[in-house]
Amino acid sequence: MKKIVALAILILWSIGAWANNTDFMPMPEKITFQEGNFRLDANFKMAVQGSAHPRLYDAATRALHRLAGRSGLFFPQDVITPQTPAEGARFLVYCQKAGRVELGENESYEIVVTPQKVELSCITDLGGLRGLETLLQLLRADENGYYFPVVTIQDKPRFPWRGLMIDVCRHWMPMEVIKRNLDGMAAVKMNVLHLHLSEDQGFRVESKVFPKLHQLGSDGHYFTQEQIREILAYADARGIRVIPEFDMPGHTTAWFVGHPELASAPGPYTIERRWGVMDPTMDPTKESTYAFLDKFLGEMAKLFPDPYLHIGGDENNGKQWNQNAAIQAFMKKKNIPDNHALQAYFNNRILKILTKHGKKMVGWDEILHPDMPKTIMIQSWRGPKFLVESARKGYTGILSNGYYIDLIQPASFHYLNDPVPADSALTDAEKARIMGGEATSWAELVTPETVDSRIWPRTAAIAERLWSPANVRDVEDMYRRMEIISFQLEEHGLTHIKNYEMMLRRLTANQDIRPLKNLVDVIEPVKIYQRHSQGVKYFSHSPYTRAVDAARPESMTARWVAKTVEAFLQDPAQANAETIMACLNKWRDNHAQLQQTMIKSPVIRELESLSQDLSDLAAAGLKAMDALLAEQKLDAGWRYEQQAVIERAKKPRGQAELMIIPAVVKLMDAASTE
Amino acid sequence: MKKIVALAILILWSIGAWANNTDFMPMPEKITFQEGNFRLDANFKMAVQGSAHPRLYDAATRALHRLAGRSGLFFPQDVITPQTPAEGARFLVYCQKAGRVELGENESYEIVVTPQKVELSCITDLGGLRGLETLLQLLRADENGYYFPVVTIQDKPRFPWRGLMIDVCRHWMPMEVIKRNLDGMAAVKMNVLHLHLSEDQGFRVESKVFPKLHQLGSDGHYFTQEQIREILAYADARGIRVIPEFDMPGHTTAWFVGHPELASAPGPYTIERRWGVMDPTMDPTKESTYAFLDKFLGEMAKLFPDPYLHIGGDENNGKQWNQNAAIQAFMKKKNIPDNHALQAYFNNRILKILTKHGKKMVGWDEILHPDMPKTIMIQSWRGPKFLVESARKGYTGILSNGYYIDLIQPASFHYLNDPVPADSALTDAEKARIMGGEATSWAELVTPETVDSRIWPRTAAIAERLWSPANVRDVEDMYRRMEIISFQLEEHGLTHIKNYEMMLRRLTANQDIRPLKNLVDVIEPVKIYQRHSQGVKYFSHSPYTRAVDAARPESMTARWVAKTVEAFLQDPAQANAETIMACLNKWRDNHAQLQQTMIKSPVIRELESLSQDLSDLAAAGLKAMDALLAEQKLDAGWRYEQQAVIERAKKPRGQAELMIIPAVVKLMDAASTE
Repeated sequence: MKKIVALAILILWSIGAWANNTDFMPMPEKITFQEGNFRLDANFKMAVQGSAHPRLYDAATRALHRLAGRSGLFFPQDVITPQTPAEGARFLVYCQKAGRVELGENESYEIVVTPQKVELSCITDLGGLRGLETLLQLLRADENGYYFPVVTIQDKPRFPWRGLMIDVCRHWMPMEVIKRNLDGMAAVKMNVLHLHLSEDQGFRVESKVFPKLHQLGSDGHYFTQEQIREILAYADARGIRVIPEFDMPGHTTAWFVGHPELASAPGPYTIERRWGVMDPTMDPTKESTYAFLDKFLGEMAKLFPDPYLHIGGDENNGKQWNQNAAIQAFMKKKNIPDNHALQAYFNNRILKILTKHGKKMVGWDEILHPDMPKTIMIQSWRGPKFLVESARKGYTGILSNGYYIDLIQPASFHYLNDPVPADSALTDAEKARIMGGEATSWAELVTPETVDSRIWPRTAAIAERLWSPANVRDVEDMYRRMEIISFQLEEHGLTHIKNYEMMLRRLTANQDIRPLKNLVDVIEPVKIYQRHSQGVKYFSHSPYTRAVDAARPESMTARWVAKTVEAFLQDPAQANAETIMACLNKWRDNHAQLQQTMIKSPVIRELESLSQDLSDLAAAGLKAMDALLAEQKLDAGWRYEQQAVIERAKKPRGQAELMIIPAVVKLMDAASTE
Repeated sequence: MKKIVALAILILWSIGAWANNTDFMPMPEKITFQEGNFRLDANFKMAVQGSAHPRLYDAATRALHRLAGRSGLFFPQDVITPQTPAEGARFLVYCQKAGRVELGENESYEIVVTPQKVELSCITDLGGLRGLETLLQLLRADENGYYFPVVTIQDKPRFPWRGLMIDVCRHWMPMEVIKRNLDGMAAVKMNVLHLHLSEDQGFRVESKVFPKLHQLGSDGHYFTQEQIREILAYADARGIRVIPEFDMPGHTTAWFVGHPELASAPGPYTIERRWGVMDPTMDPTKESTYAFLDKFLGEMAKLFPDPYLHIGGDENNGKQWNQNAAIQAFMKKKNIPDNHALQAYFNNRILKILTKHGKKMVGWDEILHPDMPKTIMIQSWRGPKFLVESARKGYTGILSNGYYIDLIQPASFHYLNDPVPADSALTDAEKARIMGGEATSWAELVTPETVDSRIWPRTAAIAERLWSPANVRDVEDMYRRMEIISFQLEEHGLTHIKNYEMMLRRLTANQDIRPLKNLVDVIEPVKIYQRHSQGVKYFSHSPYTRAVDAARPESMTARWVAKTVEAFLQDPAQANAETIMACLNKWRDNHAQLQQTMIKSPVIRELESLSQDLSDLAAAGLKAMDALLAEQKLDAGWRYEQQAVIERAKKPRGQAELMIIPAVVKLMDAASTE
């Protein structure tokens, strides 16, 4: 009986401790806290034992420097090597064998922290890398200094393919963008960087076989092969595979600038500066096309070591094919019924080339066709339905629909989007074909300055969906933890937080940014593809430096206000009321100040009426708060009059939307008679 | 008479306009404003005419995108090329000929803005590049939008050598640090990047001839030759020369890890992790040393196109030479009287090698020796006296003493430091030998995270000293303009502003940074070499992430407070009093809040007593303010008691100093009886 009580107390205490200490993202599979702490001090030493790949020593060195950087402790060790003695080390990493950065490699690990030492055990060094990141998320501090709480963590990924696609074509993304995002990916245990390397707007890798591809198709913005090798090494050091994508037969204008002979219509071609689905498409009927692609893909197959190579295959509008008599004749002769079948013919030819060069094919949904063998892998941008369907048909696949982070949707939306939905009714064998997913950072509307803020922190929520058990789905807790990881990601030079105020400084020409920040804090860019359908015509050289570009994809201020208002309406405690009143007062008075700022910042004038609406809405909200606090009701006529203010405020301006409307409306509704 | 009055009015008006519009840095030689503005709109087009080098088209394209980025205007042009038609272009660049990125090339330009058009004329495209930066500094805005004021500017540099040395050895500085700093240099018209490429702590460039140099001497952190070419191209595109420095015979430990045979004492050697002057020195008596350096310098001479190559030559402590019997015997045999003479012998041998490879020698003061010919160039770290002396002796030289930005001195100090002091008494021919100067970013105490904040904005003040006429010396106006250029430099991704709060976020573990910021805003790191002499032993792997590293080299808050207090004491206007009171109140109350922050941030506890002292000092300041405002005097006893508070506050803590002490003391003194 005593034992049971003790156990119950331990369990209850663990739950309490859990609540205070699970600041992880992604959440590990199993965590057991116990009492006590391991204290860090300036004598802290670490060592790696067993048979690890060199990458584990480098990762251990980086982890040590990050711990020093956060704690300000002057640790005695400089670099961790196989020669680093275990004697005196209070943090030991045990690794069974060198891992391979390949699909399905063992990434499991176990962490055991006692007051005396920290142990991290792993089968392969990839598990070690993941465990080091977990340990860095475990660091805590109190009056007595920095510590790791005593804990046992067992962890492994749910899906083996946890990717981020970066489009480096529509806007060029230089080396440092790729590197800092690889660090960010490693921090949240992602393991696939998918590089979208060719597009209508740019061909972004050096080809020594066909140099006109990058020389004429890139405006000088491409990765040299040495730089690709640098990316590969950087990714490998972080246990991340790199999958190159060469989109074909559509999205290929930039190829045709140097090689018009590949196209289905005569040139000349120039680098595309507009966005959208373009006509230029490879000619799938000419043998010379395959001879070219054989050589080119052979070159790329050697450059990129991963067995998978992505051929895109999306959004071929078929116009050039329809208008080309030779292609039409070819289809007739070969009994190819339609463009989709012609593309399947093309894909089958490409598949043979890839197979010859030792590569497996990945492509977007469109490559799915009855003529295609089961060896190809489908990346679904159309939806889980398509992915489930292809799994049922025997194809392996990964989900990207629902992970389109360029569409500026909330983290909660991405977070609850499961590659294997609970209601999918797939057999276990079919489920196993769904390998994971990829967040996609399409680059029409982002530049190196803003791209991090579109990727992070929301991609951390996707990373958790792909790593953690399916039942980790608490949205509120996800948001709490996402804020923590967002801050930690700055350690890698990611600019998602710091470029915000920098952009506001430019927008205000270095005036006091506060009035503008008060407004931009509560707006979000319009969602999905709306930015292209509001009368603004974007080109690749357009400015992506406006308030809509500075605005966060998800306003955490608006989220916090909504929660606070909800709590107030449920239980009108004075503290909440004061916070809400302070916010409303700030917004009401903000417009007059922002108008002063606008005098020297015409660039923000596009938000002038939105700012006015925020002020009006806040004034109405204040009136509602006064009534609620006085326990009086405003009459229905007043509420009716406010509808015009609300409707006006709902209209996007400067391609941004005001996100605090629902919260203020709730206050109005609660304050008014029906 | 009418004409004279009109002229006088015009002059008076010009002076008024000047005061409002000269936000340039560096200040151009001649500026004449007139009434009217050139308005930018979405139809704005530009074109380049004449015979320019391709770099001018690229620079014009970048300038166009920066204008778009600031104004949010959707200009119709994507890239400016020789084919871009002049028709319809309201901004025309006229360039006489392609420039060469070489010492002494013509960098002059003229800008003429009328209400109808903007014209930029230059002899070479280098002048065009400088003029584009001036034009970007001319952009203004009002209620009617963005504009350039009508103006004529004639400009050319005072000195032909305006450099920044970046030490990439003591802490590794990757590509993106170099690139964004090259952009920063171009923005302030600097034209020499001096790369300090080898040191005791690292050998930072790939050698294909002697690969052990970078393979064993760099911890894997070095520039490949392709990356060097990338830097060279990036610099060339901005009209900046690149001077490589290979420091010898001292500062060479990292060479000896792979090549101990070069040293004056037997190895083995490991990469140095400490700072200071080390013993390892090349053996100047062995022919094999010269055979090696001939091959190596031959390789580097080909890699770096500039005619100048820097051989360092500083801080050889001579210990290894003194202890090496063979070297002593050699000196005796050759009648070499001392180590300085032996180094001159070494330098003469190196000079022959460099001459053979088509290079001119640059070195630090120590290479100056009667045995050295006049063809060498001296970079003076010892002082203008040495530079003047060497100019008198017939050597060309550049000044770096007084431009050591790593020593954390105020911009005003660097700004007033003239390569040719007014009292130098040199002949014109001697003066002409002083080619300019270089700011030096030594890297013991900086990392890629903090280096920009040590370089900028203070280097802009040095850039002005080297570009603008000698009589541009108004310190107050320099500070006003430096703040503007500092903000503009963010456009290039420089992190000197944005990494400040990022570091404070890490220091507070993402708590509210305001209490910490209130403190760090008014501290500065200890100056000169004090950080190494306060009982903290730094290694290359030590954390450079503490409050002292986040603190600005020069507290603009403290500067502003000092000015405000001075103004108040001269004329106790109520507005100033309120501002001062608000500051003092904030500081007095800050400590209690910061103590709360410290609970979870042990790393900032090293500032706890400093924070307490700030609070105590502020309380005393408030008492003084009360007395001053009440026109009462506090008795001398009170003032005497406060001396203990002041003395306590003066003591550095966490290797940082409180900068607001003099201002508060002034208040106390003014409020007390003698």
